[in-house]
Order: sequence, then structure tokens, then C-alpha cells
Amino acid sequence: MRIGFIGLGIMGKPMCLNLLKAGFSVTVWNRTKSKTNDLVKNGASLAISPRQVAEKSEIIITIVKDSADVEEVILGRDGVFEGGKAGDIVIDMSTISPFITQRIAAKLLEKGIEMLDAPVSGGDSGAIAGTLSIMVGGKAETLARCLSVFNVLGKTITHVGSIGMGQSVKLCNQILVSVTNMAVCEAVTFCQASGIDPQIMIQATQNGAAGSWQLINLGPKMVRRDFYPGFMIDLQQKDLRLATESAQALNLKLPALSLVKELFANCVENGEGKEGSQALIKALERINGSSTLSSKKFSLTF
Amino acid sequence: MRIGFIGLGIMGKPMCLNLLKAGFSVTVWNRTKSKTNDLVKNGASLAISPRQVAEKSEIIITIVKDSADVEEVILGRDGVFEGGKAGDIVIDMSTISPFITQRIAAKLLEKGIEMLDAPVSGGDSGAIAGTLSIMVGGKAETLARCLSVFNVLGKTITHVGSIGMGQSVKLCNQILVSVTNMAVCEAVTFCQASGIDPQIMIQATQNGAAGSWQLINLGPKMVRRDFYPGFMIDLQQKDLRLATESAQALNLKLPALSLVKELFANCVENGEGKEGSQALIKALERINGSSTLSSKKFSLTF
Repeated sequence: MRIGFIGLGIMGKPMCLNLLKAGFSVTVWNRTKSKTNDLVKNGASLAISPRQVAEKSEIIITIVKDSADVEEVILGRDGVFEGGKAGDIVIDMSTISPFITQRIAAKLLEKGIEMLDAPVSGGDSGAIAGTLSIMVGGKAETLARCLSVFNVLGKTITHVGSIGMGQSVKLCNQILVSVTNMAVCEAVTFCQASGIDPQIMIQATQNGAAGSWQLINLGPKMVRRDFYPGFMIDLQQKDLRLATESAQALNLKLPALSLVKELFANCVENGEGKEGSQALIKALERINGSSTLSSKKFSLTF
Repeated sequence: MRIGFIGLGIMGKPMCLNLLKAGFSVTVWNRTKSKTNDLVKNGASLAISPRQVAEKSEIIITIVKDSADVEEVILGRDGVFEGGKAGDIVIDMSTISPFITQRIAAKLLEKGIEMLDAPVSGGDSGAIAGTLSIMVGGKAETLARCLSVFNVLGKTITHVGSIGMGQSVKLCNQILVSVTNMAVCEAVTFCQASGIDPQIMIQATQNGAAGSWQLINLGPKMVRRDFYPGFMIDLQQKDLRLATESAQALNLKLPALSLVKELFANCVENGEGKEGSQALIKALERINGSSTLSSKKFSLTF
């Protein structure tokens, strides 16, 4: 099975390497060409455009930054759509808008090209280890044809529904991640203000009803003031923008999501966009005094 | 070691039974006398007042509802203070205000009576099984003297700091529990509005960075519309009131806590105070339309 791979960033590159190691024939393209070098050294063919990737492949994987980037490489000039043939499958593994996903899929179908949306969670470590969680939207039979590919990339492959629903479940994941993060920020801040070592609090609470991945993994980093990114605020904020836009399209008010998005925006304004999502605690600290921001009023009405 | 036990509610009764089973000599008192019957059958002595409990015991455990109830049984007329002697230890296992705890401890100390605050988590099932998590504030040497008692009641006994700090850590626990609950409510609501089976979403997300006790345990109940209480909203709301009061006393703004407290208040207004904390999702649903509440504006400024 000939695979095309578009987008060789922090996630895409190790995923593509895993496909090469598993013996797949892979054609690659990336906007910044230099990022293809390591892949070519490992046996990948280099294409001059997404169109050429599609011409040489039956399954075309895209994993790029945002909705507009996916539209560009698939439906843009010299894009996948131009090079694709009936029976091909496009798998978009980026995190983008569920609605734009559906629009792209409808366009591809005009040519008989199937699409799956298959966003991932698990970070770059999951991409390297091939242990990603993959949330797949689209037809079950299309997913079945791609299973040998997914099995190389991830450990948990879940068919969540029709096209676009993979993205919606990923956005649920991001709502959970960010609001639970906020729970940890408030507990750690309250604990410190109470004069208690927050590490002791984290130990005392993490095995009960208060426990979460965020508490166990990000809590100690907050306490150590270690803001090195596991998941970067800029990307978290992009995903929360997608979630907010989708919620608005569904006429849904999600006040905790709105709150957290506003606080992450404050982090970005303060130059913390490249820090890890645990730096959310800094926005809470600014609300509580130590910086200029304390004078700005945060206000949510819902 | 002679133990006194005051407060034989959902938590106190099974805890007291475990002490009797472990061979401790226990004197009991409860505001509603009929609740002492089962304990007396199991070998407990019945006292006519908290004062008499203290007269007959070296360690006096209280586990009652709120700050005022603890003040009443300890410092009120015929209370523990009147019957206590130098060297006695009062262990308050209720969840109450850290500040009131410190005030009670200071008063007890006038008579040479030591105090520990030792709120618990783990619910009635943990109380029955003797597997509670116990967060203890007070002197290490006082805790050491009580360890044989704590080991009967709980599995994880953590010394978190000086008197009152057990309560503060418990409030951290409640902030974590309730804001994480809110994360689950928003993800489930978003998922349902997107036309996706939320059980699939919960399965696809729970093992990664989005995972939490609340997601795994309360998420499926929300989806099944099972609002039977594991932890009752009335009690959750009492704890969030304590957390909010403490935060105000510390001059801290915790916007997610404020938000969740407001939504739980809405549940109470709608007659859901005796339902489980997973019924928080109903308040979110009301914001989004289906009831009279949609016309009320929620507004937080921070």
C-alpha cells in the first residue's frame, strides 16, 4: 500500500518514520522542504507538491497546523484533490474544525475520494512510540481499509462516528484537558495561599475522586515552576478556539471553557504562548495580584 | 485506649463500628439518640452528652455536619470542652472551616487538650471498608499518638501541616473534584450536541491527558441520566461555600470555583440538592435552553 504523508512537524515526522520502519512505501511533502531530509534518508520518496503526493499514493495522510492549512494542501492549487483518484483515501490527522472537515470531505467525494478525520492525542512521545490515541470519524469500511496504517501509529483506535466526529471528540478531549487543568491551578493556588506545601496536597488527593492526569502530571510542574512545554499554550489555545467556534455553531454556552480560554489568552498576551499548558496558573496568579493584569477586570456573562 | 465518638451519620456510624470491631472501648453520643442503637448493640457505651463522652475518653472523635455543629458539641453547653482533661485529644473529622478549627483548637489548648483536624475523603463506601483518605492537621506527635485509631479508619493517612491545614487540603480536594466535574459536564454536553455517543467519547479520552476519576465515574452516570447520589449536591455545596469563604479570607479569586458554585446553587434552587454531584450537568443544560433558567443571566466578574 502506497502512502502519502503531508506535514512533517513535531507529530508528523516521527509518525512518518514509524510507517517507513513498518515497511510502507511513503511519499512525503512538507511546506518547509528541509524537514523532509531525514525521511528521505530513511527511504521516503520526495514529491514536489501535495498533488504529486496524491498521484503516487492510495492513502494520503495530512497532519498540519490549522483548518486553513488542511484546506490549502487538499483543495488548494497543486493540492491533493487535483492529484487524487477515485478509491483513494485522505486521512486528516490534524486538529481542525469539524465543519471544515465535512466540507473538505464533501468536495473530495465529488471525485470518489474517501476521507477520514483522525486527530490524535498522546503528544510527541506518543507519536515517537507509536502509542497515540486516534479518534476516527468516517465510514467504518474506510477505516477498516486503513487499519494496518493506524495500528503502526497508535495504540487506541476508536471509531467515534461519521466524518467530522473525530474532530468533535478531539475537541471534547481538549475541553476536558483544559478545564481539568484549571481545577489544578485553583487547588494549587489555594493550597499555597493557605501556607501548605502543594506537593503534599497533590499526594493526599490524587488517588481519590479529585484525581486526574492533569493533577498528577501538571500539578508538580506548577509547584516547581517548570513551564517547559509538554503541550504548548499556543496550540492549546488554537484547539480551544476551535472548540469555542464549534460550540457557537451548535448554539452552546460552555462557561468553564470560555473562562479557561480567556485565561490562556492572557498567557499569550504575556508572552507565554511557547510555554506548557501548566503556565495557565500564571494567569490565575495575575488575577490575584502580582502583575499589571490585576487591574484588568475579567468578565464573563453567560 | 478509650475513645469517644460524636456524630453517627452516614460516615460516622460505619467508622465507629470499625473501631468497635478493632477492639477499642468506645463511648458514643449523637444528637438523634436512635442512631446510637446499632452501636450500643455492638458494644459501645452510651453517654448523655458530649461532656460525658469526654469525661469517659482520652481521644474524642467528632464527625458532624458543619462548623457550627462542631463548635456546639465541643464548646457548647455540656460540650467536650467541659468534660475534657489535660492530655486528651480531640480529632475533628468533619469538613468545616479551617479558621473555626483553629479557634476551637486554641480554646481547647487553654485546658491542655490537643486537637487534630482530620477530614476524610472516600465516601460512605470508604468509611465502611476502612479505606478512607485522611488529611491530618496538627502536631506530628499528637498524630503519632492517634495512629492506631487512624489506621482502623483509613488507608492513606497524610500529615499535611499544622492545625486547620487538614481542612484546607480537604477544600483543595473539593475544588479539584467540583471543577473537574464541570470539565466532564461541558465535554459530555458538547459531545451530545455534536450528535456523538458520549460513552464512546469517554472511552476514547479517559486513558490520556483528559482522564480523571470524575470522567470515569461520573461521566457514564450523566449519560445514563443516573442522578443517584454518590456525593450529594447539598454537601458538595456546603464544602464549596467553605472553600469560597476561605478563599475570600485569603483574598483569593478562584473564578472556576465561583462558576461551579453558582451552577450547583442553581441545582439546589431546582430541587436537586439530594441528587448526586453529577447532576451539575442539569444546570449547564438549563443555561443552554430547556428551562426557565435560560432567561436568567449568569454573570461572574473577577
